[in-house]
Amino acid sequence: LLSGWGGLFGEREGKGCAVMGTLAKAWCQAAHKFTGGIGTKLCALLYGDAEKPTETGAKEDLGPTENRPACTCNNKPCSCQKADINYAFLHSTDLLPACNGELTTMSFLQDVMDILLQYVVKSFDRSTKVIDFHYPNELLQEYNWELADQPQTLEEILLNCRTTLKYAIKTGHPRYFNQLSTGLDMVGLAADWLTSTANTNMFTYEIAPVFVLLEYVTLRKMREMIGWPGGCGDGIFSPGGAISNMYAMLIARFKMFPEVKEKGMAAIPRLVALTSEHSHFSVKKGAAALGIGTDSVILIRCDERGKMIPSDLERRIIEAKQKGFVPFLVSATAGTTVYGAFDPLIAIADICKKYKIWMHVDAAWGGGLLMSRKHKWKLNGVERANSVTWNPHKMMGVPLQCSALLVREEGLMQSCNQMHASYLFQQDKHYDLSYDTGDKALQCGRHVDVFKLWLMWRAKKGTTGFEAQIDKCLDLAEYLYNKIKNREGYEMVFDGKPQHTNVCFWYIPPSLRSMEDNEERMNRLLKVAPVIKARMMEYGTTMVSYQPLGDKVNFFRMVISNPAATHHDIDFLIEEIERLGQDL
Amino acid sequence: LLSGWGGLFGEREGKGCAVMGTLAKAWCQAAHKFTGGIGTKLCALLYGDAEKPTETGAKEDLGPTENRPACTCNNKPCSCQKADINYAFLHSTDLLPACNGELTTMSFLQDVMDILLQYVVKSFDRSTKVIDFHYPNELLQEYNWELADQPQTLEEILLNCRTTLKYAIKTGHPRYFNQLSTGLDMVGLAADWLTSTANTNMFTYEIAPVFVLLEYVTLRKMREMIGWPGGCGDGIFSPGGAISNMYAMLIARFKMFPEVKEKGMAAIPRLVALTSEHSHFSVKKGAAALGIGTDSVILIRCDERGKMIPSDLERRIIEAKQKGFVPFLVSATAGTTVYGAFDPLIAIADICKKYKIWMHVDAAWGGGLLMSRKHKWKLNGVERANSVTWNPHKMMGVPLQCSALLVREEGLMQSCNQMHASYLFQQDKHYDLSYDTGDKALQCGRHVDVFKLWLMWRAKKGTTGFEAQIDKCLDLAEYLYNKIKNREGYEMVFDGKPQHTNVCFWYIPPSLRSMEDNEERMNRLLKVAPVIKARMMEYGTTMVSYQPLGDKVNFFRMVISNPAATHHDIDFLIEEIERLGQDL
Repeated sequence: LLSGWGGLFGEREGKGCAVMGTLAKAWCQAAHKFTGGIGTKLCALLYGDAEKPTETGAKEDLGPTENRPACTCNNKPCSCQKADINYAFLHSTDLLPACNGELTTMSFLQDVMDILLQYVVKSFDRSTKVIDFHYPNELLQEYNWELADQPQTLEEILLNCRTTLKYAIKTGHPRYFNQLSTGLDMVGLAADWLTSTANTNMFTYEIAPVFVLLEYVTLRKMREMIGWPGGCGDGIFSPGGAISNMYAMLIARFKMFPEVKEKGMAAIPRLVALTSEHSHFSVKKGAAALGIGTDSVILIRCDERGKMIPSDLERRIIEAKQKGFVPFLVSATAGTTVYGAFDPLIAIADICKKYKIWMHVDAAWGGGLLMSRKHKWKLNGVERANSVTWNPHKMMGVPLQCSALLVREEGLMQSCNQMHASYLFQQDKHYDLSYDTGDKALQCGRHVDVFKLWLMWRAKKGTTGFEAQIDKCLDLAEYLYNKIKNREGYEMVFDGKPQHTNVCFWYIPPSLRSMEDNEERMNRLLKVAPVIKARMMEYGTTMVSYQPLGDKVNFFRMVISNPAATHHDIDFLIEEIERLGQDL
Repeated sequence: LLSGWGGLFGEREGKGCAVMGTLAKAWCQAAHKFTGGIGTKLCALLYGDAEKPTETGAKEDLGPTENRPACTCNNKPCSCQKADINYAFLHSTDLLPACNGELTTMSFLQDVMDILLQYVVKSFDRSTKVIDFHYPNELLQEYNWELADQPQTLEEILLNCRTTLKYAIKTGHPRYFNQLSTGLDMVGLAADWLTSTANTNMFTYEIAPVFVLLEYVTLRKMREMIGWPGGCGDGIFSPGGAISNMYAMLIARFKMFPEVKEKGMAAIPRLVALTSEHSHFSVKKGAAALGIGTDSVILIRCDERGKMIPSDLERRIIEAKQKGFVPFLVSATAGTTVYGAFDPLIAIADICKKYKIWMHVDAAWGGGLLMSRKHKWKLNGVERANSVTWNPHKMMGVPLQCSALLVREEGLMQSCNQMHASYLFQQDKHYDLSYDTGDKALQCGRHVDVFKLWLMWRAKKGTTGFEAQIDKCLDLAEYLYNKIKNREGYEMVFDGKPQHTNVCFWYIPPSLRSMEDNEERMNRLLKVAPVIKARMMEYGTTMVSYQPLGDKVNFFRMVISNPAATHHDIDFLIEEIERLGQDL
């Protein structure tokens, strides 16, 4: 029946639609006639009676289908209200802003939500697969993903949603350990849905008043956690840690040579940046993009645990200066990607101070530990940094993406990046313009990434809720370490307890255990992790990352950032590696 | 009653929780006992009977509250199932992955969804305000936004959501004309919710199999629309048009001087980029970031309609070369931000070819017109570009953010940006590695921006659904233009029908109409638009942007990208400007 509505009220531009707000009641009555009470019930939600549905009113309006069992859910769109909606005859043009599209829209969105809720619950269910893996060519054949010429019905759109999730990785699954970002936080998810619904942009207070204020509040709190007095300073949420690190390089260069903004690199001396050999590749990527060049990124040696060696840093600074280069930035790492190592920040800060070099700390992965009274000492010295990258979407479990760059000196980002676009940042607005923060960004439009972090922080209690979550993940990592360090068939990549949740190890299949440590063994060992990983994905039971590093052949890098993981899941991982790798 | 569950099953790591999948049935029975049938009903959804609820089973399981009216919505979490949940006693720790957190989680997420659905419906209701405007200091006082030390209850979290939306701009409101991105597409919104729920990252096929394929399919389709044979080429979805434009500069520079990646700008000649004086500020911002410098961005003169003058472009290229500079990029604009002007792409392509310069087209705003058979001629010549920025989040109404950079030459992005991070892009994986596209990005983690566009395209039928939407917006712009071009109290900023939906005009209040065109009039006129705009926001009735440009004082820039807008809304805007501005 409803499928006819599109035609019935199909004049998208009629006055009837334009003045619909005032016609709400009349529409409710009409809807009631067509749908046997369905419309009436939704009306309560649509037009503000949702909180206090009038029992009697609902009963009076039950309409022609009196033989239907009475439904008491008269202030929500539930399945019994939607019995007559046939998505096979409906299209996106029947949804809002289509005239009288409210009921169809709410039913459609509710059905999408039901699909999502099922997926959410399944994500946490260990009896489901982490992934239903298909090779790319298989996946292309399993389903028609093409952008065809015919519009699809809403029924097909719902099917697309189901199919997309069927083949998705359950990144919230308690046995998904593949990336630094894992888990699915319910409050964070709710906040991200709200962000999508608000659908706005961060450039001005004018169009994102609440979100701009929340960014202000949240960044200040993060700076407090870093240890900058009063939370003073500056910052921005950026699209990922790589961009945050690039921001830091950009600002550090500008601080030393502000003329670079107008005159470019041609006008300034040859710069070098220094970072450890274990640091994230984004430092090099940033140097390439900013016209500094990857050759000008000096990689400082690390100790066996992956920490930068300060004496090597100082040696290379002196060396670079002797060659006439200008060291402008040291990017220390708090939580390296593979080993989870924390560079010695205090020693590095001393060197940066001595040579007047901008100290950046890439704490994309390790920043979360600032929330833990037990572990935050690992970042001692971060308060002396000039800038810090901190990705709450990693160790704090905020949905992707949420990465902050924090800067100690206020105003520098603005001077560095502003272009005074008068169409966006008008200077004669009626409110305090200091809240129009868009001109300090590299981006023009900027996605709202703050709300999910802010809402999670409110829900979790920053100093103890996040702390409990993070401490638990670190405990699990230690549990794993203790479990395998002396277990037959395992070799640790480095000695000692993990500093972060990274546990790096080789699994040695029985056939390799008695072999001499020679080239043949190494050539066989390097194939072990990829095969086990491929089998994990084909069974869909768990996922963990592997990689080579330097002269070390492929090893597993286990990381735990998912609050859903338990000791049992760690046990499972070990058993699974052994099950899948014993014949290799 | 449910509030006690946290404690009852509170052992987050117990075996009972870890093996919960297999205990589902037992749990369902237990839940049933505690909640009077609530758990049982949800079980059907949780454990896969949702599609076919067994009538008899549901009746058998109705439990102790038989005097409650029978609810037929036994396969959805509806309000009558949640009567006992008291959020005032629940916290985020009671949600999944809390043991047995399913019911609380689904109820909570459903309640969030109800808040969002109400907001969605209100967004399209003209009787609601576009914005409930408060000055920053007022908003800070109205509500406590601080990150306090105590965790909030789920009740408070829901209140936070309501409050955030109360003060948000309704960017989907039919009378919100403030930005190039307006509107709220229901299929796009559903897709964005799904994206949040899938919560993954674009860097590898391994962790985003479907989304990586959809990016491949969608970018190819966009390249086909541009006119590149067979849709061949390359591309990426990036966090906004400014970053897309920066990508273009980066790739163009690398194409001409690949050594810049390693050696930096010091090793190559002094570059210049050329773009029109009406182009987007991101070209300059990109030049500053990339170490080229804003002084090396040459601004080409525009005609009175805001189109780049090709002869001036050629003159400036010759001049730059004579000075020993190397012009490496021309950034033409298809749809300028303020005037909506389309640069003459064919003439510009001829010049770029003649001087062997990379031709980029910033079609962030104008790209959508490629979907319209009636209007796509305005981009004639775009098929000759080397790269194109196209933001579906603008004229195509895709939720924020969705910006694509398309590149004609395949492989160039990869060569330009790759750093071969072995922990992410392992070369010994078991699937076709060409789908691991992450290393061509500047970013490491990259948000999934493609799904909303893909799903909308499926729902709308690319060649006619988007077309209808876009043609309608352009028709409305022409309607506005025809309505005010000769109307008393209006002056057009430039003559002639709008090419895009930008209509630029001054409103002249009665007190200025008979004044001579002198400095005093100009000083008064420049204050008119800001005052009217401020009043619009305080009344919350509508929002439209204004700005000065060159020697032209503040004028209104009306743009229409919201499919919800009608002729009636345009009439309303005019009446509102006159109502709010007549006394000035």
